[in-house]
Order: sequence, then structure tokens, then C-alpha cells
Amino acid sequence: MGAIQNTQIVLAERPVGDIDLKKTFRTDKTSLSTELGPNEILVKVLFISLDPAMRGWMRDVRSYIRPVRINEVMRSADVAQVIKSNNSDYKVGELVRATAGWQEYAVLQPSDDLVKIKAFPGVSPSTYLGVLGLTGLTAYFGLYEVGEIVKKGGPNCTVVVSGAAGATGSVAAQIAKHVFGCRVIGIAGSQDKCDYLVNELGLDVGLNYKSKTFFKELSAATPKLIDIFFDNTGGDILDGCLRRIAFQGRIIVCGAISTYNSVEPKGPAYYSALITQRARMEGFIVFDYAKQYAKATEDMSNWIKEGKLKSRETVVQGIENAPVALVKLFNGDNTGKMLVKVADEDSKSRL
Amino acid sequence: MGAIQNTQIVLAERPVGDIDLKKTFRTDKTSLSTELGPNEILVKVLFISLDPAMRGWMRDVRSYIRPVRINEVMRSADVAQVIKSNNSDYKVGELVRATAGWQEYAVLQPSDDLVKIKAFPGVSPSTYLGVLGLTGLTAYFGLYEVGEIVKKGGPNCTVVVSGAAGATGSVAAQIAKHVFGCRVIGIAGSQDKCDYLVNELGLDVGLNYKSKTFFKELSAATPKLIDIFFDNTGGDILDGCLRRIAFQGRIIVCGAISTYNSVEPKGPAYYSALITQRARMEGFIVFDYAKQYAKATEDMSNWIKEGKLKSRETVVQGIENAPVALVKLFNGDNTGKMLVKVADEDSKSRL
Repeated sequence: MGAIQNTQIVLAERPVGDIDLKKTFRTDKTSLSTELGPNEILVKVLFISLDPAMRGWMRDVRSYIRPVRINEVMRSADVAQVIKSNNSDYKVGELVRATAGWQEYAVLQPSDDLVKIKAFPGVSPSTYLGVLGLTGLTAYFGLYEVGEIVKKGGPNCTVVVSGAAGATGSVAAQIAKHVFGCRVIGIAGSQDKCDYLVNELGLDVGLNYKSKTFFKELSAATPKLIDIFFDNTGGDILDGCLRRIAFQGRIIVCGAISTYNSVEPKGPAYYSALITQRARMEGFIVFDYAKQYAKATEDMSNWIKEGKLKSRETVVQGIENAPVALVKLFNGDNTGKMLVKVADEDSKSRL
Repeated sequence: MGAIQNTQIVLAERPVGDIDLKKTFRTDKTSLSTELGPNEILVKVLFISLDPAMRGWMRDVRSYIRPVRINEVMRSADVAQVIKSNNSDYKVGELVRATAGWQEYAVLQPSDDLVKIKAFPGVSPSTYLGVLGLTGLTAYFGLYEVGEIVKKGGPNCTVVVSGAAGATGSVAAQIAKHVFGCRVIGIAGSQDKCDYLVNELGLDVGLNYKSKTFFKELSAATPKLIDIFFDNTGGDILDGCLRRIAFQGRIIVCGAISTYNSVEPKGPAYYSALITQRARMEGFIVFDYAKQYAKATEDMSNWIKEGKLKSRETVVQGIENAPVALVKLFNGDNTGKMLVKVADEDSKSRL
């Protein structure tokens, strides 16, 4: 059959330090053949998920996933709509989540992490990139599998979350607060975000890490020290929380966004607190818990319905703005999930 | 009754950075009353144990044990001989291990961590400060309780030990090698020590961290990456091992001797490998496993008899040299356990 014009954003060169909007990415206008092989589907991308982990995928180092290649379409999780199908599991008009990358259209196979979205009323499809996507699952498995929240959670348990107004942090903080009843302190980068944490998400305390008295405030907010620290940022915040870590405290190393652009990142100088407090720092990757996604997603859906889990999105319009949106994410300009909206859902074709 | 003259070394002032032999400690000649209260014993100190942890006890910070006070006798574990007793559990001539500190004589109560030593033939009493003391127990519980060696150990398991020629490191390395059959790489600070690790202790590889090509050698020695890292040193060695950590690797944070004298220690810059490799760093304190000491000591005694566990001591003569010996420990001048010999055992009074 024919071909369609496709806008793609590719990795042009690996950044050293900060992303360079003039050099790191390149926008290509290409032609995509709409001929489909066995089991393939053609999709139109609706939303692109922006995640701190992307900075790691751009590095040429051994990691949990291969680096994005130079001149390859930038990798991302997307929500997309099927517009042509050669696979009876995916019908035209249906919504899917997949690793489709920074482009308007894609031909996908089931191996592209293809998951059908069962939308429920009142929930935007973009939620499947946020609370009901890998972002939310990351918060869930970090707390359950690394943070031992089932064992430690409760009113005597102090939980601190960095990047608490972000996509993953806000979910982790709300689960700790509203599902396990912990004392929860959220750390964020502006007074507005701190107000959001306390007034809208119901956390006990919101702390602005840019405050000159931040470390004093952190001490005052953790009189019984920190039992669980869900860390998305690393850097000085991690060191400050190591200084307040409790006996057998657990540090969930989810991310280290403050260091991802650093050529020579600073490590946590105070890590010897792990010895004196018999504490643990442990990292994880959400993919390892794929067999438990269904149960977790059911829990999260219920919590949304019960009002225990709220979410915000920061949406940037237009695929051409994906690079700018990624830079904004590293600047902390977002509250909640950072997304690029690429196209509207075609409602006629949905049924 | 009377009194005896006692040489005591006290903490005169808290060092900032390196220990200052002119200022940090003070030697006092005092008089000790030999009158004993209920359950008390009078002991003559034979050996003093020197341990990296002592640097932490000199700091005025929240830790697992209270700091040594200014003008207080420096804290240490000692092997001592009972010379007068008001406690039927401890007879004159018997040997004990206790927290008796840097002094020639001490009046002790059971609360001073008093443990009777059941010497067996061919084993020096000083062994109860080394392999059969808290030093050896530290190696044992680090591997068993934090390193998950029972689950991970075997010929496909690569274990790296820093400070491997030291008291704790040499025990950890030998247990991993000769009890669990792991591939074991020991890291030490001289070619002599590396030769000792391979030729006498039977490790697979000894690496000198002062070599200009150390990090290349570490990579070459760990083709299957590092499953368990038993870390006594911290610093650049820890970072180098983080760069080689395996999937679900375990870092046993036993000590960080390279940082103990630092005013502003450097943290492990590459700790984000914990995320990508789903790895864990965890600290511990041997005291937490006191209920399991008897079983562990029995295991270790058997391994000594079977030739699986060898040990060396570096012995400095004379209580007045305890401060110098401590500085030597931080300089890495010792192979095996660092001890001060204070007095000979009185063999006549032993039976």
C-alpha cells in the first residue's frame, strides 16, 4: 500500500553533561511504509512519557538496557492508537502502551512492550504513562520490594520521599501516607510544590530543598529519624537523609536525577551511616517485577477510585518539543508526570 | 587492701582529621585500688586489640556506641588475666576478653563485655582478639547475614575483599574461598601483602590498590563481575568495585578505613550502579548477632583445625606504644590483626 509522512526525533550525539538542544537531538521528516508484516500494527502516537532514566539510555555504558544508538529514534514509552492492524489481538481504534519512541507513527510488534489499555471512565489514556504506567509501578515496587513497607509501615514509621512532586515520588508518598498510614515528609524544589504535597496530596510535611535552612528543617521534621527514604534525586538530599537514617533504615535508590547530567557526580559522603545504623541502600528496576504488574495495577486503580491516589500532569504540546520537555524535566519544571502530547485520540475509530 | 600503680592512656582531645601523636592521647600514671566490690575482678591486661572502628569512637557524633569521653581511658577490647577475684565465675589465673581499654590493669564487672576464654592447645590467647574474637565474628556475620553467601556462594560466585590482608578481611576472604569455594580476589596495599594473600591464604588473585593499573587489573580479575564485595576501606576501591558490581550484587559495608581520618570524606560517586544492577549496599555491627556468637566461634575453631583459616598478627610491644600502633593501623602497616602486647601471661597462676 502506500506510505505516510512521519516526524521522528533521533539521538544525534551523546551529550557530555547537560543536554544541548542544538546538538543532542535531530528532527527528521521521514516516510513510513504502511505495509505490515505478520502480527504487526501501525499506530499513531498520542502521548510520550518523559522519564529521568532517559538520560542514562543516552550514555554508552553497560546498563540494564542497551544505549540508544546514534541516529536511532529516541526511546520512550508512549500511549498510541491502532490505525492499521495485522494482529487480531489489536483492533483499529484501540489504545496501546508501547516503547514506540519520539515519533508520530510507528509500526510495532508485540516485542515492543506492547500492552493493550483497558481505559476506565474518567481516566485519561495518559494515566497509563503515569500512575497506571511504569511510573506508578516503580513507586509501588520500590516501596513493597525494596523499602519493606509491608513490614515497617504504620504510624510509627517515618517515610521521606525526594522528588515528591514528581511522577514517581508523588505516588510513593501517597501510598506510604494513605495506604500504610506512615508519617510522610515530601521534598520538592519550590514552595508551590510543597503546598501541593501537603494541601492536595495530604502529606504531613513538605520541605523545599532550595531553602537555606533545609537541613535544619529536615532534622526538625524527622524527630524519630527516617525509617524509609525513597530517593529520586541523590546529591545533597541523599546525604542529608543518610545523616537522619534510623536503625535498620531502608534507602530505596530509585533514581538520582540531580546527578544524571554530571560528568563527575558526587557520591553520598555520609554513607558510613549504613554501618552505624545497620541500614541498607538498594536499587531496583521495575521491569524485574513484570509478573506482578497486574496485581499492582489493580491495587493502584482501586486507590485512585477511593481517592487515595491523586495525580497531576505537566503536558507539553507537539512532538517537536520533546527535547525541550526533557530539559524541563531535569530542571524540575514539572509537577507530576511530564508528558508530550503528540496527537488527539481519534474517537470515531475507537469502536 | 592496697593499691597498684597503673599506666593508662586517655583521650586528651578529639582529632580533626589525622590522629596527632602529640595531642590526641595522654599517658597517665595512676593508682588503682585493689579493693573489689561485689562480682568484680581485677585483671592484668595482656593484649590490646586495635581496630579501625576506634576512630569513630573518638568522634562526638551519634553512633552505635557512645563516644569515648575526653580524659577517659581509650576504649578497646583486651585479653587479660584475672589476678584477684570477687566473682566465683572467674578464678585467679584464668583468661578473659573484655572491654578493658588502654591500661595495664583494670577492675571489671560482667557488664564490661566479660567473656571467659577457653584456650585450646596451640592457639595464642591473642587469637581471641583476632580470628576467634569480634574481628573474626565480624567477617563471619558480614558474609552470612549481609552478603548472603549461603545463597550466592560457590564456584560461580566472585567475591572481592578490600583490606584483605587485614584482620577482618583475611578471615572473610578465606571463608569465601575455603568454606564456600568462591573465586576470591583480595585487595591490599603492597606486593608483599598480595603475595601473602595468594601464596599463604590461597586466594585466587591479590591486587595492589597502589598499582597504577589497579582498576584495569580489577576488571581483568572479575570477568564475570562481582557478586559479593566485602568492603573494609571505602574510597576509590569502593567506586571501582561499584563499576564491576554484578546483577543483584551485595556490598557488605564493614568499614571505610580510608575515610575515617577525613574531615570531608568522598562518597561513592558510582553508587547509581545500585540501580542498574539491582544491587545492595548494607552495613552491620557485629554486636547485633551476639546470640549466634557461640555457633560462629565453633565453626571458626573447626576451620582453624582443618587448616582453612590461617592468621597473622602484627604485634607492637608496650602499652605506651598503643597510639603509635593505632596510627600504623591507619597507615596499613599491619598484616593480619594489629595488637599491642602489654604483659606476659603469668603461667604459674593459670592453674
